[in-house]
Amino acid sequence: MSNGALSNLVHYSAPLRRFGGSALTRYLVLAGGLIAMTALTVPELRNSDAGTWLTVCLWCCLAYFAIESAGRIRAAMRAGTPMRHLLSPSGLVDIFAVIPVPIALLCGGAPETAWLLASLWVLKLAQNSPGLVQLGRVFVLEAKPLASVLVLFLIVLFMASAAMHVLEREGQPVAFGTLPASLWWAVVTLTTTGYGDEVPQTALGHLLGAAVMICGIATFGLWTGILATGFAAESRRRNFIQTWDLVSKVPFFQTLDPSAITEITHMLRRVEVPERIAVIRRGKVGDCMYFIADGEVEVDVTPTPVRLGTGAFFGELALLGDLIRTANVSTTVQSTLLILDLADFRTVMAHHSELARAIDAEGKRRLGENERQRELDLQGDTASS
Amino acid sequence: MSNGALSNLVHYSAPLRRFGGSALTRYLVLAGGLIAMTALTVPELRNSDAGTWLTVCLWCCLAYFAIESAGRIRAAMRAGTPMRHLLSPSGLVDIFAVIPVPIALLCGGAPETAWLLASLWVLKLAQNSPGLVQLGRVFVLEAKPLASVLVLFLIVLFMASAAMHVLEREGQPVAFGTLPASLWWAVVTLTTTGYGDEVPQTALGHLLGAAVMICGIATFGLWTGILATGFAAESRRRNFIQTWDLVSKVPFFQTLDPSAITEITHMLRRVEVPERIAVIRRGKVGDCMYFIADGEVEVDVTPTPVRLGTGAFFGELALLGDLIRTANVSTTVQSTLLILDLADFRTVMAHHSELARAIDAEGKRRLGENERQRELDLQGDTASS
Amino acid sequence: MSNGALSNLVHYSAPLRRFGGSALTRYLVLAGGLIAMTALTVPELRNSDAGTWLTVCLWCCLAYFAIESAGRIRAAMRAGTPMRHLLSPSGLVDIFAVIPVPIALLCGGAPETAWLLASLWVLKLAQNSPGLVQLGRVFVLEAKPLASVLVLFLIVLFMASAAMHVLEREGQPVAFGTLPASLWWAVVTLTTTGYGDEVPQTALGHLLGAAVMICGIATFGLWTGILATGFAAESRRRNFIQTWDLVSKVPFFQTLDPSAITEITHMLRRVEVPERIAVIRRGKVGDCMYFIADGEVEVDVTPTPVRLGTGAFFGELALLGDLIRTANVSTTVQSTLLILDLADFRTVMAHHSELARAIDAEGKRRLGENERQRELDLQGDTASS
Amino acid sequence: MSNGALSNLVHYSAPLRRFGGSALTRYLVLAGGLIAMTALTVPELRNSDAGTWLTVCLWCCLAYFAIESAGRIRAAMRAGTPMRHLLSPSGLVDIFAVIPVPIALLCGGAPETAWLLASLWVLKLAQNSPGLVQLGRVFVLEAKPLASVLVLFLIVLFMASAAMHVLEREGQPVAFGTLPASLWWAVVTLTTTGYGDEVPQTALGHLLGAAVMICGIATFGLWTGILATGFAAESRRRNFIQTWDLVSKVPFFQTLDPSAITEITHMLRRVEVPERIAVIRRGKVGDCMYFIADGEVEVDVTPTPVRLGTGAFFGELALLGDLIRTANVSTTVQSTLLILDLADFRTVMAHHSELARAIDAEGKRRLGENERQRELDLQGDTASS
Repeated sequence: MSNGALSNLVHYSAPLRRFGGSALTRYLVLAGGLIAMTALTVPELRNSDAGTWLTVCLWCCLAYFAIESAGRIRAAMRAGTPMRHLLSPSGLVDIFAVIPVPIALLCGGAPETAWLLASLWVLKLAQNSPGLVQLGRVFVLEAKPLASVLVLFLIVLFMASAAMHVLEREGQPVAFGTLPASLWWAVVTLTTTGYGDEVPQTALGHLLGAAVMICGIATFGLWTGILATGFAAESRRRNFIQTWDLVSKVPFFQTLDPSAITEITHMLRRVEVPERIAVIRRGKVGDCMYFIADGEVEVDVTPTPVRLGTGAFFGELALLGDLIRTANVSTTVQSTLLILDLADFRTVMAHHSELARAIDAEGKRRLGENERQRELDLQGDTASS
Repeated sequence: MSNGALSNLVHYSAPLRRFGGSALTRYLVLAGGLIAMTALTVPELRNSDAGTWLTVCLWCCLAYFAIESAGRIRAAMRAGTPMRHLLSPSGLVDIFAVIPVPIALLCGGAPETAWLLASLWVLKLAQNSPGLVQLGRVFVLEAKPLASVLVLFLIVLFMASAAMHVLEREGQPVAFGTLPASLWWAVVTLTTTGYGDEVPQTALGHLLGAAVMICGIATFGLWTGILATGFAAESRRRNFIQTWDLVSKVPFFQTLDPSAITEITHMLRRVEVPERIAVIRRGKVGDCMYFIADGEVEVDVTPTPVRLGTGAFFGELALLGDLIRTANVSTTVQSTLLILDLADFRTVMAHHSELARAIDAEGKRRLGENERQRELDLQGDTASS
Repeated sequence: MSNGALSNLVHYSAPLRRFGGSALTRYLVLAGGLIAMTALTVPELRNSDAGTWLTVCLWCCLAYFAIESAGRIRAAMRAGTPMRHLLSPSGLVDIFAVIPVPIALLCGGAPETAWLLASLWVLKLAQNSPGLVQLGRVFVLEAKPLASVLVLFLIVLFMASAAMHVLEREGQPVAFGTLPASLWWAVVTLTTTGYGDEVPQTALGHLLGAAVMICGIATFGLWTGILATGFAAESRRRNFIQTWDLVSKVPFFQTLDPSAITEITHMLRRVEVPERIAVIRRGKVGDCMYFIADGEVEVDVTPTPVRLGTGAFFGELALLGDLIRTANVSTTVQSTLLILDLADFRTVMAHHSELARAIDAEGKRRLGENERQRELDLQGDTASS
Repeated sequence: MSNGALSNLVHYSAPLRRFGGSALTRYLVLAGGLIAMTALTVPELRNSDAGTWLTVCLWCCLAYFAIESAGRIRAAMRAGTPMRHLLSPSGLVDIFAVIPVPIALLCGGAPETAWLLASLWVLKLAQNSPGLVQLGRVFVLEAKPLASVLVLFLIVLFMASAAMHVLEREGQPVAFGTLPASLWWAVVTLTTTGYGDEVPQTALGHLLGAAVMICGIATFGLWTGILATGFAAESRRRNFIQTWDLVSKVPFFQTLDPSAITEITHMLRRVEVPERIAVIRRGKVGDCMYFIADGEVEVDVTPTPVRLGTGAFFGELALLGDLIRTANVSTTVQSTLLILDLADFRTVMAHHSELARAIDAEGKRRLGENERQRELDLQGDTASS
């Protein structure tokens, strides 16, 4: 695995560490609650001693979510916008997580049924998930073609089930005797789920069934194609917005004309790296360089490590040379880095000679320093020996 | 959710309001008719009192569609092209929706069978659906590769079912004893539907079955890939055609040279916004600016709101500054807006200095006005206190 | 449907007419042979009078293919390359279609089994199908990533079936008692076929099964993604090669510099139009213009239609004006046209002023002619009245 | 099939030959081991004479893997990094392949169970598979959107199974009586596997089931779209990195400015060709030219074949003329070639006049030589006759 891939893994696994705080607790409570809720529906567990413990566990989770929600509502009240918070997606999830179960129990619902409402807790996963908004935008922006696919789907569904009803109602009065039953068959077949609880048995029924399956594949091929196209566009847009802000914080880019800045913004990828994470490991193959949009890194050169702050760049030496990293680099505080891949680095160097000169000069200066350091070390070694 | 996403949701949900007119009625009649037709096939409902009501409901729907079709035919006759209308897709759908059921009843068909022809009403969904034409074009333009995939499909289908027939006919004479039965298995398996009504049971049969499943996945992966490629190209083309007309209506773009106009046309996205819809909400994050191709909006600044008409632009202040919207903007009449995303806005600003200057100047003028207004307000406050 | 879409449909449906010659016969013989072969495996048909007729029909098809193959071999012998032809894909298909059935019958195979070899006739579909080569190239070029997906597939397959064998062999000795049986389950599940003949029943088995299904979706999502990427690249390359030759035949493009020719070659789409087909219909919306790479069209203007030959262009008037076609245009002989879409037309006009001027001048000249014609008509009308 | 496609097939099938060495042996041992392990689980085989042979075969495979692993560990120890090797993916696979089976047997596990651990051998396929790292990177880079799709999946899963549990527990206490059973149904349905072991039977259950199936298709359409987008980006990046090194080795490109080099690097595709493989066949259609990054080829021109070494190019004559190859070209040693497709060749020729001139001049020189050779041949023929 190349160093770039490794350090990416590091970047992305890093948030896991921070879960040590509240996020991990929250996810554990959520997982515990959902498992307990699921277990409570099994009669052997519910009616044994474990049932009591499961109920206690569920009440604890409910209490946790209630406290969490209360905190959020209090914060909203302080900000003077309590109703706005309650009607926001996040506020509604809080309400749906806390209120239904107690109400169901108060209304006299059987506990095993009332606690089923705890399945609403799974919505907590959607809170603070910016990615879901992005996926939602894809559906919104591609709403028209997706609706057309649904229209196609409905047309095939109705016509196929009416035809199958006519063809098979004699032979299979239970499976195809009514149109609702036939519609169920059509949905199961069009989505290529194929339970097999209702299967046509006449020759014509088989022909029609084959046509429906192929229509299903065609329809959902289009569906996937639309979503792929939409996601690619949305992804490019989102990346630009996330990076734009940060690019303006790197003084290095300020010397460029606006057209060049726009071009580079499209190329950069933003990553958040927690403190004390190795971004670059010496001796690995490197396929990208880094700009520090915010934070600080330590370059592990002897005898004294060098610290680089916001606006500095590193990792360019490997790209200028033989792609082998020459030093370890790790963050000292939580940092936001901008990654420039090798292919894009080459393009930037080729198109923007002023940037190329700056990076080259800095690279040479650093190489010179490394060299001088090594000479000093050697002299030191000689002197001390 | 960002303001852009929110306002997009508003744009797209807006057509729902206009359904209050004829479109909503039409869709309700259609849904009612299809549900009644479906319910009528259930013997318990058909033979009870509900059956009468369902039949009445179906006749009403039929009458509604007949009147609607008659209106369209009359309009076509006035225009002097009745045959052309009747042979157009829309005209054919009208005929198929109205005529088959009465004819079937007149010919002495059982009502429960005759009314099944009402499933043709679902084709009404395809009328006035421009998206379907676009999807159809994808199939037409990619006809050759799609046909190749079908050829692959047919080759695997025939060879696999002949082989499976040989392998399994001894053990399962019903399921694989004839080639038609074996072909049915092959279709069900290649499309990964997998009813399970016919399953190979010998070791060689299992090997062949596994190969067929993997071929199915490979074939339909190609199918999806072709449709995705075709849809991306068609989507880009369609967007250009939809936007081109409107761009020429915005005087602001007229100063640009043809090359720049073409470039910008590719970037803009057209949306229709009904009257009195909030396009921009103050305080939200903004990731796009708007040009008014047709219509009028009201910018909610104190003390007197400003109205902007066709050819004007708004929403650029957030993009020039910190991405936070500074005022509410809503439409006063139904308007056609052109959306320019942040990423494309930056590209335009960088490449076309004359546009950049114009937008910048207008932005500064508006900011200055806002400032002056605030000062006047303050003075007014001081004076009045 | 826009005129462009309509005329595309015309282009693509046109080859159907030419089937009137040998191609249609060939496809009919093929379809007839495959249907007869399929029907012969049904005992009720085979042992009745129909069986004799089916066998006669099959012998006729075989004779047809034998004659066809013989013709091809003779042609190859005349060209002096008989072995090369026989070992080419097309030659091998000819051999596989003709020889196996007689050999099987001679060797004493039962007729119902021997004729099963006629399922090899379906390979005839692949002969002369250039699209299959294109799809094959996608698989070849993306061989490495596709192989990686298969490795992933095999790893999940083996580990999942070994684990499931351990979990379920006690409870279901038939379904999961041996690893081959368990592998069959894993293939059926990983490809999401899901026959349901072998289903895990323990809680752990369910967990593992769920993981396998999700792995299946992930694996084949990658598979589809790779094929989509590969097909998009291959499609772009193929279009360029098909168009490049033709562009050099249009004198109009010869004035351009090489860079512009390359750019335009990427934009053009080639279509073959048989004789006497309407390419443009007056009054329809037009979204493309046409260059005649080879052939001739007739523009239906009064009083005398104008004929345009190889190298000419038409359909540009709608793009220069309000997108409405002003005259009917149809081919007089089989023609090869190059289509330039509106979006690309705008780009070409913007970037290449010399082309823009030429098209504009020709457009104005034609408009002027139309005008003068109308005036003459009016004068004629006045004179005659 | 065009020559390009053919020679690509040759390129890619070539590694198969080299398997003659250790790689083929290794794959055969792996396949043999996995088949023997699978066969050993079948009681009829295990308890017959074949069982002994299978066990012997398995021990041989285990020995082979042990020796292979020992070799790698020794090499790592010589390099002074034994622990680093053992903890690397490759080292872990070695350990998992060799140690578990003996341990299980020593711990007294039944042989048929102990040998099941040999299914871990399938991980050997992942060793030395650079493609898997690339696929892994796609998952890492697209981790956020993929996680969002999983969140969507989990939300639908829990809410649908809780609802289905309520709807169907009365009628089907075994299939939907507990939430775990209901979750199993939901997974089987959402992934469109559809075993059919648990099927809703009430009308509301059918409606909910249909909704779940459609959600499944929507969810995994997004999933595929994300992977397609990610793979396209990763593929472009990877190709650049693979080609960049080689481009710098072709002196021909050294005359270009950095911007042009970057542009061309994006266009080139790298292939490894073993010795004595025909890259170009005379008379075939050619759609690409080749640069020799490393190695040597022989151009088969009369009377004396010409040899071209590292840095030379060939195959450009067909692209400059009528696309027909004029000579056979084959490798003399294992070579690394860079392929430039026709479309990209045209673009390069158009944009970089200095390259165009160089290729053109070389092409003319070679054509002249060919001509002169032919004249000499003719004179020779005349003289000798």
